[in-house]
Formats: sequence, C-alpha cells, structure tokens
Amino acid sequence: MRIALAQYNYHIGNFEYNTRKIISGIHEAKAQQADLVVFAELSVCGYPSGDFLEFKDYIDKCYRAIDEIALHCNGIAAIVGAPHRNSNTKGKPLYNAAFFLENGKVKQIYRKGLLPNYDIFDEYRYFEPATEFDIVTCQGKRIALTICEDLWNLNDNPLYTQNPMDHLAEKGADFMVNIAASPFAWDHGGERKTMLSQNASRYKMPLFYVNQVGAQTELIFDGGSMAINANGAITHEMESFSENMLIVETDEMDRKTGIKPSPEADHDKKIENIYNALVSGVRDYFGKLGFSKAILGLSGGIDSAVTMVIAADALGAENVLGVLMPGQFSSDHSIKDAEDLAKALGCPYYTIPITDTTTIFEKNLKPFFKELPFGIAEENIQARSRAVYLMALSNKFGYVLLNTSNKSEAAVGYGTLYGDMCGGMSVLGDVYKTDVFTMARYINRNREIIPVNTIIKPPSAELRPDQKDSDSLPEYDILDEVLFQYIEKRQDPNELIQMGFEKKLIDRILKLVNTCEYKRHQTPPILRVSSKAFGMGRKMPIVAKYLG
Amino acid sequence: MRIALAQYNYHIGNFEYNTRKIISGIHEAKAQQADLVVFAELSVCGYPSGDFLEFKDYIDKCYRAIDEIALHCNGIAAIVGAPHRNSNTKGKPLYNAAFFLENGKVKQIYRKGLLPNYDIFDEYRYFEPATEFDIVTCQGKRIALTICEDLWNLNDNPLYTQNPMDHLAEKGADFMVNIAASPFAWDHGGERKTMLSQNASRYKMPLFYVNQVGAQTELIFDGGSMAINANGAITHEMESFSENMLIVETDEMDRKTGIKPSPEADHDKKIENIYNALVSGVRDYFGKLGFSKAILGLSGGIDSAVTMVIAADALGAENVLGVLMPGQFSSDHSIKDAEDLAKALGCPYYTIPITDTTTIFEKNLKPFFKELPFGIAEENIQARSRAVYLMALSNKFGYVLLNTSNKSEAAVGYGTLYGDMCGGMSVLGDVYKTDVFTMARYINRNREIIPVNTIIKPPSAELRPDQKDSDSLPEYDILDEVLFQYIEKRQDPNELIQMGFEKKLIDRILKLVNTCEYKRHQTPPILRVSSKAFGMGRKMPIVAKYLG
Repeated sequence: MRIALAQYNYHIGNFEYNTRKIISGIHEAKAQQADLVVFAELSVCGYPSGDFLEFKDYIDKCYRAIDEIALHCNGIAAIVGAPHRNSNTKGKPLYNAAFFLENGKVKQIYRKGLLPNYDIFDEYRYFEPATEFDIVTCQGKRIALTICEDLWNLNDNPLYTQNPMDHLAEKGADFMVNIAASPFAWDHGGERKTMLSQNASRYKMPLFYVNQVGAQTELIFDGGSMAINANGAITHEMESFSENMLIVETDEMDRKTGIKPSPEADHDKKIENIYNALVSGVRDYFGKLGFSKAILGLSGGIDSAVTMVIAADALGAENVLGVLMPGQFSSDHSIKDAEDLAKALGCPYYTIPITDTTTIFEKNLKPFFKELPFGIAEENIQARSRAVYLMALSNKFGYVLLNTSNKSEAAVGYGTLYGDMCGGMSVLGDVYKTDVFTMARYINRNREIIPVNTIIKPPSAELRPDQKDSDSLPEYDILDEVLFQYIEKRQDPNELIQMGFEKKLIDRILKLVNTCEYKRHQTPPILRVSSKAFGMGRKMPIVAKYLG
Repeated sequence: MRIALAQYNYHIGNFEYNTRKIISGIHEAKAQQADLVVFAELSVCGYPSGDFLEFKDYIDKCYRAIDEIALHCNGIAAIVGAPHRNSNTKGKPLYNAAFFLENGKVKQIYRKGLLPNYDIFDEYRYFEPATEFDIVTCQGKRIALTICEDLWNLNDNPLYTQNPMDHLAEKGADFMVNIAASPFAWDHGGERKTMLSQNASRYKMPLFYVNQVGAQTELIFDGGSMAINANGAITHEMESFSENMLIVETDEMDRKTGIKPSPEADHDKKIENIYNALVSGVRDYFGKLGFSKAILGLSGGIDSAVTMVIAADALGAENVLGVLMPGQFSSDHSIKDAEDLAKALGCPYYTIPITDTTTIFEKNLKPFFKELPFGIAEENIQARSRAVYLMALSNKFGYVLLNTSNKSEAAVGYGTLYGDMCGGMSVLGDVYKTDVFTMARYINRNREIIPVNTIIKPPSAELRPDQKDSDSLPEYDILDEVLFQYIEKRQDPNELIQMGFEKKLIDRILKLVNTCEYKRHQTPPILRVSSKAFGMGRKMPIVAKYLG
C-alpha cells in the first residue's frame, strides 16, 4: 500500500483555502499512485481555532468542506482532520476527529481520546474525549488511526487514565497513522521522535506521522512528519518548516533500516532550529494577515539586528525598513552599526533624530515636573517618541511593526510599555538574551552580516548617559539560567536555592518577573520556540502578590 | 446550629493576608457564638491563581496556611477552600477542595466534582475532578458540602455526566453548604439565585451559599452570599460588593419565609449593578497592586467622564487626575465640558495642549510622507502624543493610567493602539456605548455631575475636522445589538440575518470585529461585567481568516 504524507500549512478559518489545498493534495497523491493520503489534525479549519469553534456556522463550514473533499476521494482514500459534533446529550458539543474518506464519502470517523489541556493547549474547552476507538480498514489493511496526544500515554503519563492505542492494538492492526498539530519548541523535537519511536516498538508496527507546518500567530508548527518501522527506527523524515508530500510503501517498511532517535537529538541544532522557526513564524504572520512589509527601530544593538535579519530572510530584504532614531544619549557607534547592518542586508533605512521631539515633551511637562531629576519618565519619553514615529510610518505605508524585545527583557520588564514594547508581533520574545548572542554568531557563520561591534559591545538601552543593561540587571548568563529554571522548568524559590543560586539573587529576579505581569499582558503576540513562552501558554494573574 | 457566612475579599498569592483574614473571621464568628464558619472557594490562595498552582512552593504555602488556620478552630468548626494534592498516580496533580476544620485539625476534605472549563474558567488545566463525595458531620448535623459548579448540574447540564448532590442526598443530609468563587456578570445574579433555589427545592433542604467578594484583575466577585430555605425561598441575602459576616440559625430556617427568585430578577438593576461592580473593580486593582492614584485623559466625551466618576468613587476624587490635551481639532465645548466635570467631581486637572507636539512629529515625518493627504497616521499621532504625556506623568508621579475605551469601540477597533488604547486597566471595556450613556444618566440621577452637553452631543474622537463616530460606524443602538448577539450570544452570521439584521450590516460589523483581534491582544485588562468580555474569557486567533 502506498501512503502519501501531506505536510501542509493551513490557515485558521480559511475554509476555501484549506479545502482547495487538501483537494489538490488528494489529486497530487493520486497522480503518484498513492492508495491513501494523510493530512494533519484539524486541517480543514486550522489549529488552534479558538472560540470560533463555538459558532454553528464555523462547524457547518467544516462539515461542508469534508463533504466537498470526500467527493474527490475516488481511486484514493484520505484521512483529514476536522471537528465532529457530539450527538450524545452529555459532554462538550464537539469531538476532535479524523475523517476517513473513501469512494466519495465519509466512511468512518475516529475521535480523539486524549485531550491536552496544559501550556498552550485547551482542548477541554471545546472537545469531549472519546472513550471508544475503532480500527479503520483501507484496501484490506487495518489501520490504527490516532490523533496527536493519543500516542502520548506511554510510560504512564499521569494525566490520562486511558490509552487509545491499547484498545486499537488489541483489535489488531497492520500499521499506525497519527495526525498531529504539534507545535515547535527547540527541545521538543527529540522528545516527540522518541515517543513516536517507542510507540512503534511497543505495538510492533510501522507508524506514519503527519504534522502541520507553518505558523498560526504565536504557534509555529514545524512539521517533521515521518515514517517509523516496527523496530522504532525512523526510516523517512520530512524537512521541517516546509510544505511537502512524501510517498511511502507500507510493505517496504519491514526491510527499511532507519535511525533510532534520542531525546536530546536536536539539542546541538537548537539555534539553527529556532532561527528557522522564527523565519517561518514571521513569514506566516505577514502572509496570513495579508501584509508584506515590516518596519522596525534599529538601535545598533543586537536584538534589533537579529530581528532584522530574520525579517529580511522571511520577507525579502527590500521589504524590511529599518528606522534609526538617534536621541540625546545615542552613541556614534550605534548609528554606524545600525547603518552597516542595513547595508549588509540590503534593507532600506530612514534616519529620524528624536531630540527635538523629546525636547517638546519635556518643555510641556516642565510646569508639572518642575525641578525633579531626570529619571524613568524621561527615559521612557525617548522610547515612546520612537514608537510614535514607527507607528506613523506603519499607518501611512502599511508596514507591520516588529517588536525586538528578547525573553530576558520581557521576563524582568526591562522595556518601555508603548515604547520599545510596541509591535504587531514579537520575534525574539521567547529567545533569551544569551541565545540572541549565539544566534547573531550563527547568522555571521559565513560572512559578517551583523557588525561584530554590535555583538561584542556591552548591551545598553542608551536612554541615559553611559547606561548599561548590567546597571539594572544581573549578568545575562546568570539571569537567563535562573529565568529558564523558573519559567520553563517551574522551579520554585526553594528549589532554585537548592540548585545553588543565592537567595538574594533569586528574590530579586522573581520579584521582577512577578511584578511585571502587567507589562507582558499588553505585549504583542510572541513567536513560541520554547516549552514555556510568554503568551497563550502562561497564565498569571496580574494583581497577585506572590514572591513579589 | 449557628452558621457564620464569611463573605470576604481575598488576594491571590498573598497567603499571609488571606490567612490572617480567615483566622480573624474564625474569632469573630466564635465571638458571635457560631458553631461553624464558612469561607469561600480557594479562599486560602485566592481565585483564580493561574499557573502559580504549578509551583510546589505555592501549594506548600496553601498547606501551611490550612494547618495554621486549623489551630484556631477550637470551639468552632470552619470550612475553608484550598487546593489539595492528588495522591493517586493518575490525573491532574491537584483537587479544588474544601477543608473541614475542627478541634484544631483538618477533619475532612471535600473535593470538587464539576470543573468549569469555559469562558473565563480553565479548572481542567490544574484540577482533577472528584468522583466520590462524602457527607461532612458537624455537631451531629449532616452537611452536604459542595463547591460552586458542583450545584450547576440540575436540568441535565450537558457538560457533566455526574451530579455530586445526587450522591450526597442519597447519603442523607440536614442542609447544604456551597462555597463559591462565582464572578459577577450583569445577567448572572438572577440565574445564580434561581439555580441555588432549585437545588434547595429539589433536595428539600436549606442551602447556605458563600461567595467571594472583590476583584482580581479582570474578574469581579460580587458576593451575594445567601441562605435559602427548603422550599427554595431566599431568607437571607448579603449585600453585594462588600465584606461582611452573616449569622444564620439552621434550626430557624424551616420557619423563615423568603423570596423565590426569578432569572430576570436583577435586570432592572443592570446599570446600577454594573456601576458598583466597576467601582469595586477599580478599587481592588489599585489596592491589591499597592497604588492609590489614577490618571486619565479627559476629552469632554462621555467615556472619559463616566470613567472619571467611577475612579473618583473608587479612589477618592482627590486621587484622580484628569488631563485635558486639546489638539488641532478639539472643540471649545469639549474643553469646557471636561473642566466642568473635573470641577463637579472635585478632581484635580492639568491642561497640556498638544499642537506643538504633533507639529514636530509631522515636520520630522514630512520627508517621508511628502504630499500624501492627512489620514489615519496623522489622527493617530494626536492620540499617541496624548499617551506619551499621560504615561510620563504616570511614570513621574506613580499614577496608574485608566483606559477609557468602551466595549463597542474595543469590538470594532475604533481606537488608537498605543494612543487612547493605553492604560493599566480598562474600566469600560466590557460596557457597550449605549450602556455608557445610560450609566451617565444614572450618575446624574440626583445632580448634574457629568455635564449634560457631554451626554447629548454626538460622539466624536475629534481627530479631524467635524469628525463624528457615525462617519465610521453604524449608529450605536444598532451596532451594540449586533455586537451583543455576536459576542455574548455567539450568534453566527446566518443566525443574525434570521434575526432580521441586514446582511451588508452584519458583514461589515463582523469583519471589523474579527480583523481587530490584533488590537485587542494588546489592550489592558478589562473589568468583566458581562457573560462574555474581551479578555481571558474570549480566545480568538489573530491570523484567522473567518468572516473578515
């Protein structure tokens, strides 16, 4: 049997686009003599659809799309993900389902049993978990079909009390198919491969895995669809972050050798993978919203430099406008570094000095500020004046403003709300400062794109004389390690102290993180590349008083 | 038996504060000869605690608080809400529990069975639903103790397959106690009373209900704790939005007559209740964050006027600073109306004209804008210049900026991001424009506080000559009705057309709502007063293309 794995990029709510793409995939697979073509989880409506799932019309459109797609399934079968209404009187109104289409009709519907409801997942908000699982039969082959999380209850995952694959294996199957919408995180790829491999080994059958690709606002789906033989070795793996179709002969799987994955497999490609994920995230944010041009403030610092490189890669250098806005405390080298970067990339840039602007603000505030010393208010006036210029250009010419804050800054609130925290999207908001440095070196691996001076000079916001980030913050290598343990690993203060960090340092950092929740509430969507990003996957109450 | 209902205001994560408050309530109840004192759901840690529940230290602190509180339960018993660890190897790591404390110890732990996971609720993210339910015995009385949602499976609520009260009623009980964290919505009070009344009638026993009071960022808990007799009539009801303790003799409940509620009971007090909720919301946001002074832009329009009245009521007029920032297109009457309002309330106000500021921005942008006509970019420069002044004063003097956008504007994106959409909190973001007008008249019921001219003039942003809201938007009475049906009632386009709205109008409005998701992503937290507010209870993907 020939299976086509269709690793595609869907658009939430864009039924016409998704349906057309799936139908064209069916015809392409048929042209390649495939017997079955497999699309990803909730491919018809896109994942995550959010509260649109609560609208009758939205689900009606899913049903109509499935019917239309089914009409094209002649001489080929297809597996397509879509919501399915719960016809019982009890439970949530929908199932997260996989539709098996054959001979122009819906032949069978498989419903997801394990619903993730943590981090960025909230499937219990919409879906009822299934408790019965049936084999799908296609051309005499028995397929154990599951959806994403359904395979994640090996090793007694404490979250779930059932294991769909146990039921399916008992009924007897020739191979497994899993359709997924599994978002990228830099340390998740290895885990995912290992878990899929373990499933293949445990149930002693080949596994065909199809994941979505492309970004939906914060979430970036990396694809990485694959085939695994009954020994748990990966025999075929699709390129990440790109749309493609792979044809696999099921009968050849026994003879194929492959590679057994390890959980840490991708760790040495961490920065490269994050970079590619961010490029894909920027490209799809613009593409899906119908924008083509980006604008960003260029400070001569490393965050705006890396952001500009990613944007130029995603959108084309000519579509990324840098704006240099030197102020009273900007250094000459910052201006030169910013210009050098724009020139090296071939991006257009404008220069708008802001000193006369901040002077007007300060003059008009003088009756109220009187003789009070220069402070945060004056620093922020500079950052906010820049935002007004950037947004004016954005409004006038249709640029989308890119935010350049990194995760370390976002964590401790080192940024100006309505100033440098503005933007339609945050490119580096899930990348710690130390990783931004590594990424700059990765970008320069073949030639100097980012000026070396940008990389080696001490980070500074340049909002007051001789300012350095290290005046206000711990050194980034220490800060980032504490943040990683607190945010990603959910280590509490006692656990952090047990790890060897000083209590005073921990108290200082955690207080900054917890009291800046109000700032992060208003930040742009952040491209998620870690297991715990600021944004939809982290819910913290603003008025709370805990460690703060 | 004498029961004390303790309707208190807790602070998320502030264990010291909550513990002290609960202990003091125990002593007060004991002084009043109560046998049992009842506190609200998750009173020890506050509700909702969000992802803090994932930290070991946070739960340890809950346990220590319970132990400390228990020590004070001598000669009196107490029911206190707190998380409880799940000691099974399967399921989410916590239960949402009620601790029954007696003789200085934890005597029994009741675990919540029905976990809400819709709108603002996400209890499945943290908690495992219980499936076994036991009677609590106190001084020979058998108590059917439940937690909030546990009582919401009368009338075959399709969400749940079990009904804790059926189990408890089978075991035999003398009365029911329900502890809750049930947030305010203007049309929810009547529903809640009706549902509680139906429980009392169905199980033929008195019901004692204790709800939290006070606001936690977006959520406002109204209290409204009550006692209901076995006929389902409300015999005692506590004042909403205020902390208090009520003593009820259980043995007298049979002889007490009361009032049977109806679901629409509170509808005629809609605006009054919303007003009180918002005052409580503002007061607690400031109080819990440790701020005392607010700042807001005063335009002479109705939204900033109503916001200022609410803030003055919550914080004291002397703590609310209005800033008039007339620009090129501000009318004389707007300035006078704003001044009249500040004077009528006794609030301080500053005046900062912005024309020289916007002139500088336009001059510096001229090389790029060239001869392009005046448009959105120039309008937004005015709104954003004002935001810079407001935030500068906020940063310098410790004011929190209040956002003055209403729900109609927030819905259709009629506002400037980083301009008038700024603020630490949005006071009216869940109040439609038509309700803002009604509230202004409610505020003026005894004397003219808001200038009549502010109420009767046509709404205008005054960002270009002779601008009116109605140039860009449908009339507010029609707009608000469509928005209410689409947002609160989740009516899809077909259903709206069936209700009699024109297709063209529906298409126009829904497109505005759906394409402005990116703006709402960055708005301040909005005080929730309806059944569906923008904010934590409404999850919409930004890049989606559906009805837009």
